[in-house]
Amino acid sequence: MTGKEMRPIWLDEDLKTVKVIDQRRLPHELIIADLNNLDDIIMAIKEMYVRGAPLIGAAAAYGVYLICLDTQNLDKSDEYLNYECTRLKNARPTAVNLVWAVDRMLSKILQVKKESRIITARTEAENIVEFEAENCRKIGEYGLSLISEISEKKEGKTVNLLTHCNAGWLACIEWGTATAPMYAAHRAGIDIHVWVDETRPLNQGARLTAWELGKAGIKHTVITDNAGGHLMQHHMVDMVITGTDRTTYTGDVANKIGTYLKALAAKDNNIPFYVALPSTTFDWTLRDGIKQIPIEVRDPDEISYIQGKVDGKIKSVLITPEDSPAGNYAFDVTPARLITGFITERGICRASEDDIKNLFPEKSL
Amino acid sequence: MTGKEMRPIWLDEDLKTVKVIDQRRLPHELIIADLNNLDDIIMAIKEMYVRGAPLIGAAAAYGVYLICLDTQNLDKSDEYLNYECTRLKNARPTAVNLVWAVDRMLSKILQVKKESRIITARTEAENIVEFEAENCRKIGEYGLSLISEISEKKEGKTVNLLTHCNAGWLACIEWGTATAPMYAAHRAGIDIHVWVDETRPLNQGARLTAWELGKAGIKHTVITDNAGGHLMQHHMVDMVITGTDRTTYTGDVANKIGTYLKALAAKDNNIPFYVALPSTTFDWTLRDGIKQIPIEVRDPDEISYIQGKVDGKIKSVLITPEDSPAGNYAFDVTPARLITGFITERGICRASEDDIKNLFPEKSL
Repeated sequence: MTGKEMRPIWLDEDLKTVKVIDQRRLPHELIIADLNNLDDIIMAIKEMYVRGAPLIGAAAAYGVYLICLDTQNLDKSDEYLNYECTRLKNARPTAVNLVWAVDRMLSKILQVKKESRIITARTEAENIVEFEAENCRKIGEYGLSLISEISEKKEGKTVNLLTHCNAGWLACIEWGTATAPMYAAHRAGIDIHVWVDETRPLNQGARLTAWELGKAGIKHTVITDNAGGHLMQHHMVDMVITGTDRTTYTGDVANKIGTYLKALAAKDNNIPFYVALPSTTFDWTLRDGIKQIPIEVRDPDEISYIQGKVDGKIKSVLITPEDSPAGNYAFDVTPARLITGFITERGICRASEDDIKNLFPEKSL
Repeated sequence: MTGKEMRPIWLDEDLKTVKVIDQRRLPHELIIADLNNLDDIIMAIKEMYVRGAPLIGAAAAYGVYLICLDTQNLDKSDEYLNYECTRLKNARPTAVNLVWAVDRMLSKILQVKKESRIITARTEAENIVEFEAENCRKIGEYGLSLISEISEKKEGKTVNLLTHCNAGWLACIEWGTATAPMYAAHRAGIDIHVWVDETRPLNQGARLTAWELGKAGIKHTVITDNAGGHLMQHHMVDMVITGTDRTTYTGDVANKIGTYLKALAAKDNNIPFYVALPSTTFDWTLRDGIKQIPIEVRDPDEISYIQGKVDGKIKSVLITPEDSPAGNYAFDVTPARLITGFITERGICRASEDDIKNLFPEKSL
């Protein structure tokens, strides 16, 4: 399973229900949730049934479709449509794909007459989904060349990769972004092994990336978020690949909290640190990631309680003293200076304004 | 409670039973375990009923006392005594206090006749415990000066400290090492707040440090191990203080896995990073921490399962897919170049061979 056989989101045959994998329950239960209206979509994004920048974008696109599907909404003014879309855009603050997808949907819909809006919205949502799937496929191809090069240098010995969080097909429709080169390398017969950061607080690495890689038959080991530096010091990591939730045009990367620490360790040990991203994750308006990218602060209970399987059921256990407060910062920003390069659907480039705009010249305007 | 009212280890009035707080059950249950012989002591160290370098040393010292207490052991040869002590020294590999305490006990015992060994062993074990308690008190005094200086610079605004793992009184008999300056600052009326890294896999921060600080009425917030870099980037940390399990005479520090990542972030953000340690934690034989300090690899189940409280009971929940392997590296080494200074019982010094030996000239021989 790499997203080819099953995607994390799809429109049901009834064309009224958006189906998503409830990612909060993985790896212990594979549950499909039905989302029937905008409020369901917003809830699914906020509560992280769906997560990962490209998938949040896809879910939001279907959210706009569901707004249109309710003809009562279409009978109202375009201002109302905009109002509902703003509500959707505010579901989570950090991943730029959310705003990007809603704006792209809006611009298409507002161009056509009300009676065409449902079909236009559906087509455009599907376009966005297919666009992201195709982006991932290309990222896999470009990333493969980097892994392949390391494998040759190591004369075929296992290439050890490290990733943080989940930027797999669960997050990105098909193949994933950070995982796409891993899947491509595995299919190309390169011997790889992946260190999977568990990625507290919500353990997307331990729960989702490990599950994905296991299903694909890729060797992997789950480690604490604390361990990567030690592994790098001892030459047990050849390359780091992560995803991103928002990337400035200058190359700063907001990704799951803790990414910055791994980038520092990679730099300190002279290990290549790559970020895989579709161009939809660039924010072409922001210059300074640390100062300008909004970092979501989530419910402290996500720190105090950890969810897992016990006695055959999924339960949450309290780990902290009952009266100790917790702080839940969901993302951090890795400055461009720590990033070796970006793997995009157009190829590989350095994390610098010049190189990024060279690859995406239409954005220089 | 700062260790003054209750210690993590003591000899029962019967002079036969070593009593310890079973730290695996905190913060949800305060359970006292009875250790009656050497095997109990080894088990308690391996299974982490007791943990933290100074406390491991203290437990080992009592372990030697319990060997002597069994007169059948004393009737055997000194070789047998040495053999049993070697078994004890091998309980865990990283904390040097274990070897230090056993060797100190042995050298005292072997100097006296067999009939005096029980009383000599008890006296020496108690000396070690009191020595560590006094070391912590002095570390608190010296560390206070650093916090006090920051508080003055900030004109009395809250001083934000960050710590990793637990180097509190639970780990170090009284006051703790990393926490001693915090307790001292709090008692001196300085407004402090402590960011507590939860410290996966065994959550000594979330479970033990948070519990200690809460009992002492010190403001604190539990965060994931991933969060510190973000907080430092945003000027939310004024100083980092950690403990250490083994320190080379050149200033490299082996401490709980993940310490290195925090040191990198502190350096990158120009934030002082101090390590608090009694001199018993120096290893005067090692020059290169990364190459020479043995790093314990523990049971992968400590990664795959997380323990906490649910339905009024302490249970372990599985977080990973059942067939995903995990890797459990327990410590990492922070190179001296990332450390601003050491807070020792003799004062503060830089993490360099010259400065360390200047403070402990008797070790230069």
